Amino acid sequence: MPRDMDFHGRKVLITGGLGFIGSTLARRLVDMGATVVLVDSLVPEYGGCLFNIAGIEDRVTVNISDVRDVHSLPHFLRGQDFLFNLAGQTSHMDSMADPQTDLEINCAAQLSILECCRKLNPGIRIVFASTRQLYGRPDYLPVDERHPIHPVDVNGINKLAGECYHRLYSDVYGIRSTVLRLTNTYGPRMRIRDARQTFVGIWIRRVLEGVPFEVWGGSQLRDFTYVDDCVDALLLAADSDAAVGKVYNLGGTPAVSLTALAEELVMVAGMGSFTVRDFPAERKAIDIGDYYSDFSLIRDELGWQPRVPLRDGLRKTVEYFKPNLPQYL
Amino acid sequence: MPRDMDFHGRKVLITGGLGFIGSTLARRLVDMGATVVLVDSLVPEYGGCLFNIAGIEDRVTVNISDVRDVHSLPHFLRGQDFLFNLAGQTSHMDSMADPQTDLEINCAAQLSILECCRKLNPGIRIVFASTRQLYGRPDYLPVDERHPIHPVDVNGINKLAGECYHRLYSDVYGIRSTVLRLTNTYGPRMRIRDARQTFVGIWIRRVLEGVPFEVWGGSQLRDFTYVDDCVDALLLAADSDAAVGKVYNLGGTPAVSLTALAEELVMVAGMGSFTVRDFPAERKAIDIGDYYSDFSLIRDELGWQPRVPLRDGLRKTVEYFKPNLPQYL
Repeated sequence: MPRDMDFHGRKVLITGGLGFIGSTLARRLVDMGATVVLVDSLVPEYGGCLFNIAGIEDRVTVNISDVRDVHSLPHFLRGQDFLFNLAGQTSHMDSMADPQTDLEINCAAQLSILECCRKLNPGIRIVFASTRQLYGRPDYLPVDERHPIHPVDVNGINKLAGECYHRLYSDVYGIRSTVLRLTNTYGPRMRIRDARQTFVGIWIRRVLEGVPFEVWGGSQLRDFTYVDDCVDALLLAADSDAAVGKVYNLGGTPAVSLTALAEELVMVAGMGSFTVRDFPAERKAIDIGDYYSDFSLIRDELGWQPRVPLRDGLRKTVEYFKPNLPQYL
Repeated sequence: MPRDMDFHGRKVLITGGLGFIGSTLARRLVDMGATVVLVDSLVPEYGGCLFNIAGIEDRVTVNISDVRDVHSLPHFLRGQDFLFNLAGQTSHMDSMADPQTDLEINCAAQLSILECCRKLNPGIRIVFASTRQLYGRPDYLPVDERHPIHPVDVNGINKLAGECYHRLYSDVYGIRSTVLRLTNTYGPRMRIRDARQTFVGIWIRRVLEGVPFEVWGGSQLRDFTYVDDCVDALLLAADSDAAVGKVYNLGGTPAVSLTALAEELVMVAGMGSFTVRDFPAERKAIDIGDYYSDFSLIRDELGWQPRVPLRDGLRKTVEYFKPNLPQYL
């Protein structure tokens, strides 16, 4: 980490705490001596699983419940010093197929959480995980935080509302919140069962199963954040007064084409293969072309930058999943 | 109207059809020979009332129901040529006091309406009434459609989501929609009971009751659209292929200070008085200072411009309410 942070003895709630990023954050926080509560719905499609906290299960408190459950929320939010608000529906296709569920989780539940904080715990410090998806198809590259917002799917619209609520409650009610707009985050414990959340997951699965995977398009540029770097950003944001009420992009360098990423993955894994095919018509309508972030704002204000090169990150990811693959299928 | 439009024999649904703008639009449409259905919840605080359609009640079909009622929606949306989607919670203060209700109406119900159109009537033409409130405190004046979005209340966030859904369903599913961002609309049949929706309403009430009214601040500049001009814009948008998928500001010229507006109102009415006081603290947090629109986009693309000068509009408004005041208290 770029600077010392003290979460020792601090009370921390993580929604989506059994998910990919939530569980990785929980590991870091328990090692720092924080008292950690994980709330997760374990909706099968969303990526949370108890195996994600293997080895730390005795050092965290786990509660299986849903952020849409307005009755359980007050119990968990009361008395916490920090809320890492990571629970969300993250599949773009699912948001189009079932838009009301996406709205309930990414929009209505966020408002409930903030109302609950306002009434019961206005001193809480919140970091909210948003997404680069709300920029839509970039007008220019790299995309900074001033880029116009034009979400290209229901998920992007609801995440936009979710982050707007956080900023509003920070500005109007002093519920200190920071929004991070995540790009493609990858690493151990990510969801690899299918392509529901990110294509990278299913690629890893196919490679480790020895089955060829498909690259759609191939020349699109994207940026990738290794999960440990993402956790750095979450902690830095929570720990910084300068970050209150702010929105920051995360990112990764260099941007790589999907074909280059596929080649890197196969090389690192020492197995697997892929084919390149045209983009399917039904995905084309919501595809955003090239995307990579300008993350200089969080670098300059909070001292964050990605530390794990893509090759190292992919190697660690493959090494994690090789022995643990059955847990994630 | 700037050009001929033919709504004769066309089937038109207006949500919020018993409200201020909806009922004025209905009057125009029945005179043009359209077949008009009005859906309105008659929520007491929202401004709809049966008196608003006095004189045309035999020429429209009225159904009292709520846009949150997902079961009645399919019945009304099927077979319509046009939807003027005007139903909404419009009070900024109410949106802060009861944010979930605002979300249900301005956000969730809009998504339900669009899903219903997608499934049952994808050929419908929609015009959605949005608000300048989602620009928040202006970075520059006049505010054009490229101005950054930063809503300063829950209402602004939910209206933003509502208009994003309309644009998305237009882009992805071809449900042809146009968004109009309304500024302060005034005229006969507006809600004047209190300041819930706009301060202009309560001013008019106080003037006609002979009770002094309060001007908060006074020097803030605002623009005003007379309701007949707003109806022009709704019809032009519905009638134009060029408007599909677009967002347009409405506005009014010249921008006037609140004090100047108050003076004009008292002068036109020939009665009443006002006092100027400091902005109340609880309103200050969500006040946006000066605001006026650049509406050159809709002027250039659709030929719309406000035709009714402020003085004439205020005179018509006062003349309407003088004999009808008891109906609106």
